[in-house]
Amino acid sequence: MDIQRINPRQWNCSAAVHGNLVFLSGVVADDKSLPMKGQTEQVLRRIDQVLASAGSDKSRILSATVYMADAALNDEMNEAGMAWGDRANLPTRTAVGAALTPKTLVEITVCAVR
Amino acid sequence: MDIQRINPRQWNCSAAVHGNLVFLSGVVADDKSLPMKGQTEQVLRRIDQVLASAGSDKSRILSATVYMADAALNDEMNEAGMAWGDRANLPTRTAVGAALTPKTLVEITVCAVR
Amino acid sequence: MDIQRINPRQWNCSAAVHGNLVFLSGVVADDKSLPMKGQTEQVLRRIDQVLASAGSDKSRILSATVYMADAALNDEMNEAGMAWGDRANLPTRTAVGAALTPKTLVEITVCAVR
Repeated sequence: MDIQRINPRQWNCSAAVHGNLVFLSGVVADDKSLPMKGQTEQVLRRIDQVLASAGSDKSRILSATVYMADAALNDEMNEAGMAWGDRANLPTRTAVGAALTPKTLVEITVCAVR
Repeated sequence: MDIQRINPRQWNCSAAVHGNLVFLSGVVADDKSLPMKGQTEQVLRRIDQVLASAGSDKSRILSATVYMADAALNDEMNEAGMAWGDRANLPTRTAVGAALTPKTLVEITVCAVR
Repeated sequence: MDIQRINPRQWNCSAAVHGNLVFLSGVVADDKSLPMKGQTEQVLRRIDQVLASAGSDKSRILSATVYMADAALNDEMNEAGMAWGDRANLPTRTAVGAALTPKTLVEITVCAVR
């Protein structure tokens, strides 16, 4: 099969790999009691894990799409993102406000190269 | 030409194919009087048609992005999505709330392999 | 390195190129005092510039995702988009309403072939 699906769940998988390309499902934090910075940190740690499962890592992200429940918390999200990002290999990024499930402050999806 | 464009319309096409990759335009239901489940079913049938035109099918979707006019209708959307999805080949998925055109409850876009 | 990153900035780059694929960051207008049509025109000119830096152009866009601060301004956005688009090579498109930074009326991201 030319498509590898990582961690299939009820209605999606964590990552789909085709050739060198890795697509991730949108990732949200497990602990919804955390503020934006903490939720973003959890999301980014989970993205690290999923990328590793797919044979990739954060230095190889092509694009990141960030959905924020409150676009006014953009700076707090950025703070966590900048601490995590590989400064020598920054991805493209799009960050917008969107309605998320209750208490979810941020959801991030990425496309990477493995 | 190395890019195939399927069903060109006024300002977009239904699908763009490059190599093995197929990108779809966001799909909405024709019948806006339907509730979330019915609109989602219409959208998924249309996605089947467009994927077929591009030489692909739902078992080969890499990523799906779902925009919902009301994120509280997520379960109803999921119900239609689960009935339709190829359980052995689940795509990655991101589902968020967004403002859609009047009476449109859901818009879905996918990237697939042909 | 098999990923080329164009115009790296504080927390993202303007474009990431892998193989023939070009991913752009979301682009917004510099002049936020402009109405929707003017902001869209600025965004599209900037997309032309970034695509050129990546060895691509608007005739080679696979997918465009358009986020609008007010989905009711869709027609105004379309007017600018139709004047700019390569009618013989229309991309796939998804356009939704989303919360953007203050006074930003439209943000567009594209994936193209170089």
